[in-house]
Amino acid sequence: MLLLAVKGITESNRKFLSQYDVTVVTPDTITAQQIPEIVISYAWDDAIGQKILANPNSKLKWIQTQSAGVDYLPLKKLKDFGVVVTNASGLKAIPIAQTVLSYILYFARGLNIYASRTHWEPYTNQYLVTELPVLVFGTGRIGQQIASHIRAFGGTVYGVNTTGHMVDGFDEVYSMHDYQKALAKSRVVVDGLPGTPETDDFFNNHFFDQVNQLFLFINIGRGTTLNQNDLLAAIDDSRVKYAALDVTTPEPLPKNHPLFDRPQVLLTQHTSWGEYVNAGRTGGLFRLFEKNVPSFVKSGTIQYNIVNLDKGY
Amino acid sequence: MLLLAVKGITESNRKFLSQYDVTVVTPDTITAQQIPEIVISYAWDDAIGQKILANPNSKLKWIQTQSAGVDYLPLKKLKDFGVVVTNASGLKAIPIAQTVLSYILYFARGLNIYASRTHWEPYTNQYLVTELPVLVFGTGRIGQQIASHIRAFGGTVYGVNTTGHMVDGFDEVYSMHDYQKALAKSRVVVDGLPGTPETDDFFNNHFFDQVNQLFLFINIGRGTTLNQNDLLAAIDDSRVKYAALDVTTPEPLPKNHPLFDRPQVLLTQHTSWGEYVNAGRTGGLFRLFEKNVPSFVKSGTIQYNIVNLDKGY
Repeated sequence: MLLLAVKGITESNRKFLSQYDVTVVTPDTITAQQIPEIVISYAWDDAIGQKILANPNSKLKWIQTQSAGVDYLPLKKLKDFGVVVTNASGLKAIPIAQTVLSYILYFARGLNIYASRTHWEPYTNQYLVTELPVLVFGTGRIGQQIASHIRAFGGTVYGVNTTGHMVDGFDEVYSMHDYQKALAKSRVVVDGLPGTPETDDFFNNHFFDQVNQLFLFINIGRGTTLNQNDLLAAIDDSRVKYAALDVTTPEPLPKNHPLFDRPQVLLTQHTSWGEYVNAGRTGGLFRLFEKNVPSFVKSGTIQYNIVNLDKGY
Repeated sequence: MLLLAVKGITESNRKFLSQYDVTVVTPDTITAQQIPEIVISYAWDDAIGQKILANPNSKLKWIQTQSAGVDYLPLKKLKDFGVVVTNASGLKAIPIAQTVLSYILYFARGLNIYASRTHWEPYTNQYLVTELPVLVFGTGRIGQQIASHIRAFGGTVYGVNTTGHMVDGFDEVYSMHDYQKALAKSRVVVDGLPGTPETDDFFNNHFFDQVNQLFLFINIGRGTTLNQNDLLAAIDDSRVKYAALDVTTPEPLPKNHPLFDRPQVLLTQHTSWGEYVNAGRTGGLFRLFEKNVPSFVKSGTIQYNIVNLDKGY
C-alpha cells in the first residue's frame, strides 16, 4: 500500500515500512495516478489532501497528524470518507509542560522585571510556586504533565475537563460548566483546550470578568480559544496581571500587534514544543506512528491516539 | 538574660522568650550599661557588635544570623570569646532553589530570546532539562533542594563538596579537587559555595578554561567565589554561553558595570530568597532560632545550625 510522507522519514523508517509492504511517496515525486491510491497520509498537506478527497474512489484510510490539535483538518469530510485520524498527543507533553513551568517561574521569581533591568534596583515581590495555585483547562497528557511538575514544587493544581471526572495528579477536577469554585482559589490559569466549536472564544470578557488580579494567564492550547482583545482589556485594567501566550491569532502576528507592546505579555511564538535533540524537527513522531502500523496493515485496526472526529480531539 | 533583637521580633516571639526569662532589647533602646550584658544577639549589628567585643567581660554567648553565609562576622574573635554562631541555613533553600530552576528554564526554553522580541521570529533551539546535566558546587540544604527539583524534571545532577562524600538526591558527588570528570559531562554549573578563604576566587580563568560552550553558569553562593572579570572574558569568547548571577561584587553594582551590558547575563540583585508571604522580610527566622532556646537557657547547649568558626560555614 502507498504512504504519502508529508513529513520527512528516515531510511530506517522506510525499511521498517517495507517489511509491511508499505511504499513511501513524497509530495514532490507523487504522480496524479498515485493520488487516489494513497492509503496513509503521514502528516497532512492541504493541497494534496484536497485532491485526494476530491476523488470519491480515494483509498485514504488513515491520517497521522504531527500535532495534538487537528482543527485544521476537514473533519466532517474525513468522517464521511471513513478516514481514521491519529494525532501526536503526548509527543510534545514534556517540552510544553517545561515551557509552562518556565512561564510560571519567570513571573513568580521576578525574572520579567530583571530581564530588562540595566541598573541596580532590587525587586522583592516574588512568589513561591506554593503561593500560586494553578488551574489547568484540559486534563489530557499535557495537562497531566503540567500537574506533575506543579506538585513536585509542592504546589496546588486544579483541572477542568468536559465532565469534571477526576484525573490522577490533580488536587481537584471540575467540569467546563462548573469551574468557578476552582477559579476563585487559583492565581494562574492555563488554557490547554483543543480547538473545537465549543471552546471557540471561551476565554473572553465573560471569563475575565470573574477574576481580580489573576497573577498569570497562559495559553498553550489553541489561539482560537482566547479572545485576545478581551485579554488585552483585562490586562489594561488589572483583572489579569501577566500573560504568557505560545499560540496566537493569527500566526505569525503582524508587526506592531498590540500583544507585542504590552510589557506584561510574554510571547513564545508557537515554539513551546522545542527540544534540542529535535530542534526545528518533528522528532519522535514516527515512534508514535509505527506502533499502529502492524495491526493496521494486518486487519485495518488502529489502537493508539485516535481522534474523535465529532469532538475534534 | 538579655537578647539584642537586631531583626524585628513579634509580640508572640517576646512572650515565648519571656517564658525562659529572656528579656528583649533593641538597637535603638539599648543603653551603654546593657551592652556587656547581652547574652544572645538575634542577627548582627556591626557597630553594636564591635562595642560588645571591645569589652573582655562581655557575656555574649550566642549569635543567630539571618543569613546562611557568615563571612561578614569577626569569626576569629568570636571563637576567642567562646561565642556560638548559628546560621539561617535551610531557611532560604526553597525560594533559592526555585530561583535556580527559573534561571535554567529561562535560558533552556528560550525565554531570554523572547523576553525582548517585539516582532515575529520563532526561535527553536530550546533544551529540555534532561538535555542539560547540572553540576552543583555545595551539597548543603540549598544544593539538595536544587538537586531534588532537577530530578523531578527527569534531569541529571552532580554535586561537589569538600571531601566528595555522597549526599542523597545527587546522581554522583565529587570532591573540590576532583570535580573535572563531572564538569566534562555537565552543561550547567551552579556556584553555591560559602565565602571562605578556600573558595575565594575559585571560579576564575583557570576554571573557565576547562569548559567549552558551557550552557549556563549560575552564582547563588557568594560573590567572592567568582572572578567576575574572568567570567566576562569567558562569555565574550563563548567558553560560557549564559550566566545568571544572584550575588555580585560589589553590591550594589555601580551604574554602567559591564555585567549590566551583556545580554547573556541575567542579574537578580541578591533577591533569589524572595517569597510573597515574607516579601522584603526575614520570615521564618524565629521558628528556626526558637528550636535552640530551651536547651540553651537550661544548660547552655545549642543543637541546630551551628557554624564551624574555623571553616566559616
